[in-house]
Amino acid sequence: MKVTLVGAGKLGMQLYAKLTCIEEIQFVEWYIRSSKKNKTNEGITITNDAKKLKQTDVYIIAVSDNAIEKVSNILPKNSFVVHTSGCISINKIKQSRRGVFYPIQTFSKGRNIDFSSISIGLETRTKNDYVMLERLVNFFGANCLHINSDQRRQLHLAAVLVNNFPNYLYAQAEVLCIEKGLSFELLKPLLFETVSKLDQLSPIDAQTGPAVRDDEKTIKEHLKLLKKPHLRSIYKLLTKEIQRNNGKKL
Amino acid sequence: MKVTLVGAGKLGMQLYAKLTCIEEIQFVEWYIRSSKKNKTNEGITITNDAKKLKQTDVYIIAVSDNAIEKVSNILPKNSFVVHTSGCISINKIKQSRRGVFYPIQTFSKGRNIDFSSISIGLETRTKNDYVMLERLVNFFGANCLHINSDQRRQLHLAAVLVNNFPNYLYAQAEVLCIEKGLSFELLKPLLFETVSKLDQLSPIDAQTGPAVRDDEKTIKEHLKLLKKPHLRSIYKLLTKEIQRNNGKKL
Repeated sequence: MKVTLVGAGKLGMQLYAKLTCIEEIQFVEWYIRSSKKNKTNEGITITNDAKKLKQTDVYIIAVSDNAIEKVSNILPKNSFVVHTSGCISINKIKQSRRGVFYPIQTFSKGRNIDFSSISIGLETRTKNDYVMLERLVNFFGANCLHINSDQRRQLHLAAVLVNNFPNYLYAQAEVLCIEKGLSFELLKPLLFETVSKLDQLSPIDAQTGPAVRDDEKTIKEHLKLLKKPHLRSIYKLLTKEIQRNNGKKL
Repeated sequence: MKVTLVGAGKLGMQLYAKLTCIEEIQFVEWYIRSSKKNKTNEGITITNDAKKLKQTDVYIIAVSDNAIEKVSNILPKNSFVVHTSGCISINKIKQSRRGVFYPIQTFSKGRNIDFSSISIGLETRTKNDYVMLERLVNFFGANCLHINSDQRRQLHLAAVLVNNFPNYLYAQAEVLCIEKGLSFELLKPLLFETVSKLDQLSPIDAQTGPAVRDDEKTIKEHLKLLKKPHLRSIYKLLTKEIQRNNGKKL
């Protein structure tokens, strides 16, 4: 299968690294708008001239959500083009052969993602194109997930709840630790346990802490310690919601 | 070292399991208020009569925060008594030889905690008693952390931010998945990656997602999908805070 990759952001870099390792894939070109090099260390051609792009079986767009439509417009008209976004409509791609290839994972600089542990959400307009993406996902060693746009958007929203928001709370916890001369490392076994126990328990059953216990004294104590008004608001709101969901205050 | 344990809640059960395995510890009695048995399967004496408690080197109270003071009152006067709470003052213990033995971890039913990976926060009033708790922590194979009440309370607050609140968000994400016929399992590699990358990156540097990118379109899209008003409020507040902390909207 001949593949062209577009974009060299966090996801683009990971896809690049993976695509170069798959024997069954002929990684033809990497389109990077602002590139000054014309070959990668692994010998893959880099181009910044969309007009000269070679014909391949699939073009994978891994650029920011806002740029997907624009990038699709400069890719060859009669080609199969997929984007990798959790939130953008399949119809932002202008080619009639369009698709979505959405890896359900967070990508950070310098982190090598093990694709074999993740699912990739697929959407296409024809069966044939679906089969091609399915092959691609198999080459990645990932799990195939047939989802429509509606499911994909919801999954993307859920991903924000399990990834971006907890990470923000970790950052705030780190600040609290530093304020008192404590290392954030102390909390890491707790972070891991909170996630690991989901192998056994549904999160609703795994809920612990002062909110679910309705431990008003501790909650008051914590609010006294919280000096930042915005973090206080978040504490209050999440605590109220945990209590409400616990059925005690409905 | 002779030890008495008080309480058979989530933490009490874990302490029981661990204490019975440590050769250097003579686990004398387990005080459980509502117990009907008088021996455990491992042969440890269970009692519900505080007046008959035998003299031991240390009494470990693992009961709910609200009950600590009351329990301390019924334990032998001239003994060394410690509680295990992150939030309660050392002075709620009435014995003059008092201490805190606070395992920085979340404890759930049916989960065996590996004490060797965690830290236990210690506070005592005398050096001698500290040395005794330090020995106990060493028997547990855990890391000793000398902290005062002020640090302990802050650590407990930080623990809520990294444990209870993310867990609530996981529960809400699971609901969103179920609504669209998707499995929560799909998000687990993402959950793990978010936590695992903290080995390399500080959470403030690890922040990803629409908020930190100021991706207003996606944020609007997500708010449209969120039907529960309370979850919408949480989404808005956390998004605003991530943006503010990113320095873009200060």
